[in-house]
Amino acid sequence: MDKFEVTILGCGSALPTTKHNQTSQVVNFRDKLFIIDCGEGTQLQFRKAKLKFSRLGHIFISHLHGDHCFGLMGLISTFGLLGRTADLYIHAPKGLEAVMKPALDFFCNPLSYQVFFKEYDTKKSSLIYEDRSLQVTTIPLKHRMPCSGFLFQEKIGLNHIIREQVDFYNVPTYEMNRLKAGFDYITPDGEVISNAVLTKPAALPRSYAYCSDTAYNPPIIELIKGCDLLFHEATFANSEKVRANQTYHSTAEQAATIALKAEVKQLLIGHFSARYPNENILLTEANAIFPIVEIAEELKTYVVE
Amino acid sequence: MDKFEVTILGCGSALPTTKHNQTSQVVNFRDKLFIIDCGEGTQLQFRKAKLKFSRLGHIFISHLHGDHCFGLMGLISTFGLLGRTADLYIHAPKGLEAVMKPALDFFCNPLSYQVFFKEYDTKKSSLIYEDRSLQVTTIPLKHRMPCSGFLFQEKIGLNHIIREQVDFYNVPTYEMNRLKAGFDYITPDGEVISNAVLTKPAALPRSYAYCSDTAYNPPIIELIKGCDLLFHEATFANSEKVRANQTYHSTAEQAATIALKAEVKQLLIGHFSARYPNENILLTEANAIFPIVEIAEELKTYVVE
Repeated sequence: MDKFEVTILGCGSALPTTKHNQTSQVVNFRDKLFIIDCGEGTQLQFRKAKLKFSRLGHIFISHLHGDHCFGLMGLISTFGLLGRTADLYIHAPKGLEAVMKPALDFFCNPLSYQVFFKEYDTKKSSLIYEDRSLQVTTIPLKHRMPCSGFLFQEKIGLNHIIREQVDFYNVPTYEMNRLKAGFDYITPDGEVISNAVLTKPAALPRSYAYCSDTAYNPPIIELIKGCDLLFHEATFANSEKVRANQTYHSTAEQAATIALKAEVKQLLIGHFSARYPNENILLTEANAIFPIVEIAEELKTYVVE
Repeated sequence: MDKFEVTILGCGSALPTTKHNQTSQVVNFRDKLFIIDCGEGTQLQFRKAKLKFSRLGHIFISHLHGDHCFGLMGLISTFGLLGRTADLYIHAPKGLEAVMKPALDFFCNPLSYQVFFKEYDTKKSSLIYEDRSLQVTTIPLKHRMPCSGFLFQEKIGLNHIIREQVDFYNVPTYEMNRLKAGFDYITPDGEVISNAVLTKPAALPRSYAYCSDTAYNPPIIELIKGCDLLFHEATFANSEKVRANQTYHSTAEQAATIALKAEVKQLLIGHFSARYPNENILLTEANAIFPIVEIAEELKTYVVE
């Protein structure tokens, strides 16, 4: 099956620790790479994950807190030193370009390639990236500042030709695209050969939802309904529920509740507060609500399937 | 002896690798900490070195290339999250405050403490920090942009009282400060007891010089003459001497030549180009000129003695 996976570069929260880097992850869809959030140290984690910088064209920033974007300057600068020529797109809420421009003009001037900032509206879900086989839409979240998650959805693919059947019925080559698109084949004698005989449907489209940072926010349930893998922040345990509310973060139990209600296939939790020496308490609390949960780990890759 | 040591946080050059972080180091002088340069990831390396943020009051930036200052935003922001109240001073060439201000105003506002930028002139050697027992002066370097090294010099200490002698001659307590300052003691009978009988001279003042980034630059020799430990950049091996010249960096041999001519006690080389899988070639080439050389290593501490 075509590659669709997520590699965690950092799953800590605002304070980086010796255990967790600040937020960043890479979505690998058919060897095109997309970075989601870019905390300090992202470029180094990217290297450690043995990913190829040249495969990256788009970066999605959820919100303008430092732990989600302080790695951008280093990344952009390094690409310049490496002689990158391909355009780089940074999708972010309003304001990032203005705040970064003085530093970019000073430190990265000239640059061997162009950086384009693409503003998106955090108040509504909208399509912000699309290619032949993938689309990315935003998921409005509830945080202390404008913030959005991202839904990566594979597009519905074309039918797969069943080679033996096509040979058996002597279907000419020029009919193949019609078959893939779902049409029946009509023989020179006028016989109708059903498409279902000649093709198999494409695999069901897969989807990955990233929701961080956010308070418990039920309106996202409809947007991420049935997705194959949900990354949801779980900054706190139940014992810090009040603090979670105050800071617009979620508990592990709340993350699991969203997963349950949205009927997702798998839940991955992250954005862990530095206060937990290990995250087993978060896993246990999430598991009590939703059965299929994993704890995010730096440099580990999770397959969307 | 009072603590005077240097911990390397990063000794790579512009491109961070899985082996080397970007430039940063910490001088620990009697448990006061000073950061020299602050590449991306400095705050995390600082934590890994198990140093205390609260002991840090001054940061010295050699020049305004990204690999020497991209870690500042994260560090300043983290101090804010930790509720720091003590002032933080950043000593840097002209321009840093202007280029950082928009990001500081956006990401670190409000901040629980004050950040003061102190500009220094990279064209001449000048005193930029002083306390009772330490002074820091700049060392003008030769790089592609205004750049300066730093000389950390212990001040000459007071004499040490020899307890048994003082007791033997019945020197009253109120005379002690005079003795420490080098005066003789005159007994009530008018007998002169030489200071040399009553005290030992303080240890020789120690010094540490940091010279990075720089081309081979003989004028610094006078400024760092006889220092106990010299950190000198050695970005390239001899085979890249032309490239070293073009980029205003030094070869290991040039670093060693400076060490030899300045008659320093020990040389520590760093700022390694990412092209060397290991730095033995640099060590060998430096060693051919100067006998006491070490290769900088991340999180290793070097004593100034």
